[in-house]
Amino acid sequence: MLPVAQTAPGETRFIDAFFTGTSAISVTGLITVDTPTHWTGFGEAVILACMQLGGLGIMTTAAFLGMVVSRRLRLRAKLMTQAELHPSISLGDVKSVLRFAALYTLAVEILIAAVLALRFHFAYGFAPGDSLWQGVFHSVAAFNNAGFSLFSDSIIGFATDPWISMPLILGTILGGLGIPVVYELSRRRAVRNWSLHTKMTLSGTAVLLFGGWLVLLALEWSNPGTFGQYAWHDRFLPAFFQSAVLRTSGFNSIDVGQLNDDSLLVSMVLMFIGGGSASTAGGIKVATFFLLMWVIWAEVRGERDATAFRRRLPTQVVREALAVALVYLALNVAAVMLMQRFEPDIMLAPIMFEVVSAAATVGQSTGITYDLGDPSKWLLAIVMYGGRIGPVLFATSLAMATRKRLYRYPETRPLVG
Amino acid sequence: MLPVAQTAPGETRFIDAFFTGTSAISVTGLITVDTPTHWTGFGEAVILACMQLGGLGIMTTAAFLGMVVSRRLRLRAKLMTQAELHPSISLGDVKSVLRFAALYTLAVEILIAAVLALRFHFAYGFAPGDSLWQGVFHSVAAFNNAGFSLFSDSIIGFATDPWISMPLILGTILGGLGIPVVYELSRRRAVRNWSLHTKMTLSGTAVLLFGGWLVLLALEWSNPGTFGQYAWHDRFLPAFFQSAVLRTSGFNSIDVGQLNDDSLLVSMVLMFIGGGSASTAGGIKVATFFLLMWVIWAEVRGERDATAFRRRLPTQVVREALAVALVYLALNVAAVMLMQRFEPDIMLAPIMFEVVSAAATVGQSTGITYDLGDPSKWLLAIVMYGGRIGPVLFATSLAMATRKRLYRYPETRPLVG
Ligand SMILES: [K+]
Ligand SMILES: [K+]
Repeated sequence: MLPVAQTAPGETRFIDAFFTGTSAISVTGLITVDTPTHWTGFGEAVILACMQLGGLGIMTTAAFLGMVVSRRLRLRAKLMTQAELHPSISLGDVKSVLRFAALYTLAVEILIAAVLALRFHFAYGFAPGDSLWQGVFHSVAAFNNAGFSLFSDSIIGFATDPWISMPLILGTILGGLGIPVVYELSRRRAVRNWSLHTKMTLSGTAVLLFGGWLVLLALEWSNPGTFGQYAWHDRFLPAFFQSAVLRTSGFNSIDVGQLNDDSLLVSMVLMFIGGGSASTAGGIKVATFFLLMWVIWAEVRGERDATAFRRRLPTQVVREALAVALVYLALNVAAVMLMQRFEPDIMLAPIMFEVVSAAATVGQSTGITYDLGDPSKWLLAIVMYGGRIGPVLFATSLAMATRKRLYRYPETRPLVG
Repeated sequence: MLPVAQTAPGETRFIDAFFTGTSAISVTGLITVDTPTHWTGFGEAVILACMQLGGLGIMTTAAFLGMVVSRRLRLRAKLMTQAELHPSISLGDVKSVLRFAALYTLAVEILIAAVLALRFHFAYGFAPGDSLWQGVFHSVAAFNNAGFSLFSDSIIGFATDPWISMPLILGTILGGLGIPVVYELSRRRAVRNWSLHTKMTLSGTAVLLFGGWLVLLALEWSNPGTFGQYAWHDRFLPAFFQSAVLRTSGFNSIDVGQLNDDSLLVSMVLMFIGGGSASTAGGIKVATFFLLMWVIWAEVRGERDATAFRRRLPTQVVREALAVALVYLALNVAAVMLMQRFEPDIMLAPIMFEVVSAAATVGQSTGITYDLGDPSKWLLAIVMYGGRIGPVLFATSLAMATRKRLYRYPETRPLVG
């Protein structure tokens, strides 16, 4: 970034500027320099712009790719008279999607920014201009699931304030559902008309949100480094905040470095799953994960077909989901191994957390990011970009690629287990 | 175990006796008391018997379950004239399988025991009776992939001796291929007549064996705690030994606690995969793992069918493999979380390694087993039993369960990625 973007006269190292830009554009939120103290107002504005462009970019790009796949598959399906193939992304034309995404973004961000600004001004006595800037910045960071904060300790100072936490949670969730779901909700009000994708994403999000809440609450209830520092009735909000933001936006209202190791593991699983398809969230996506869960459930029950919400899941999409999940997992493991090489003095748990957080573009950290060497920073930058566009590009290419064969091999099964 | 089994007059705690018995019967090899110093010759003989019964038991049980599934599926397939359904386990009748397994076990164990005993006697000057006992014990431990050793430092003292290492590697591999593969190899010599299961297991084993060798060699080449302590030409054998035994039998010729963390991660992946179906090895099994890899590869290439070796993989078996792998993974994660609760002072890496080692009935350890509290020992005992019989029972029940439905839901696809 430009010299004018930094507060101190010293030089910002290229890698730190590059890392911050990558983190903002990929809407991750990991930082190697402290946002409020290191950057000037101009620098913060650049970060804001990067987050906004990054979030809008990934949402619309993923939605377009979904539309392309949908059309291609619909063409193919014409021969087979399949009734409801991929209706979830019958989004209309490109222009209307772009307009819808922009309007939706704007509406949510203004709403959240207004609530935050009012609270900052009236409850904490921030000056009007400062309140507005804080409100806008955190609203954009929340909706685009980017998780940058203008407070050095993120949202920790507001952990028990529902007027700060709840708007950020709401922004995170609304940004993380994904354009296909939101577009459909804006058109079809009746639940029975919802597409499979919408049903899976909404129910999955609810399960992860409340399941994560209860599990984290149980694991951290008496941890004095996290929720245990508050009176018992003040522990529910920070836990709900953590459950909501940890899959995607990556703010933190507790010190992540103080979490128990088992909470870190739960957190990694939740981050790995991530948010909705064609949203500002990362991970393998809620629908991808629950699709695999439905398949396993069908298998356990001995059903011939894997079904969800009275719809049959095509074999092809199951294979796609499997490929996306396992390749993503393998790349995470590879990155963890590489980073352990780079950072022999850091333990496995924080390194795993850091890599999954970067790959899922979450941005929470146990606190090791500041101390990383340059190779690790480059690695994390690659992981953030790869994690951001990897799953959607990979899934799209899988869905598009088809090879015609004039023959099929005979079917046979190896032993399993 | 009985008082007569222990050397010192002190009492063996119940949990340690129970843990040792569990470890031997489940052919894992984890120990909470040092085998040669804690147990008398009688105690060692009990362990030997447990290993042999455990190994033979799991091999034959799994083979029978495979036969039952095979018959059930063949009955079902009759309606559909499917040519080669599940030929890998056309093992004939129960009696002949039992006889074959017993003869095969005996033949391999005698061969390995003879080589080891001769080497112990002539190269290391052990007394004849002692040489024989050492040879038999380690041969049985190798073939049954149980990994118990009568040396307190396992095979570390023989790390660069090919006449000890190679027989143990051979025993490990031969015990870990599985009855269906070995039975078929004994009948059909020509490669083109091999079943899909045999081809997948043999090629997969070779890939894991040599891939693991090269990767471990590269990661540990200059680690003075492991291979780096030897002259360069003496590093290949211990690395090959580690690659071969680490998926299944669990001896160690290096100090596992000295491995780099990235080697530990590679090792966990290899242990998780394990050995052949219906063998003395654990894990999700080689064929299960490579089936998923073939599916992903087919998906990446855009093939309509997932195929391997010119055979089409049925959708149902893909779903079974997916269910087995993911449920196994989830249970491992759960056990790691629980054990972290029990052992707050032990780092994540050794705990993960310990749990995966127990679940995959491998038995290597970074050295923490001796220091574990009782809850962790009980947990590991459950994990060893569950890991031993879990995957095969789960896979069998999946293959057997079928629910007839008179209707099918319409097909629809959610977004992936
Ligand atoms: K984020
Ligand atoms: K073992």
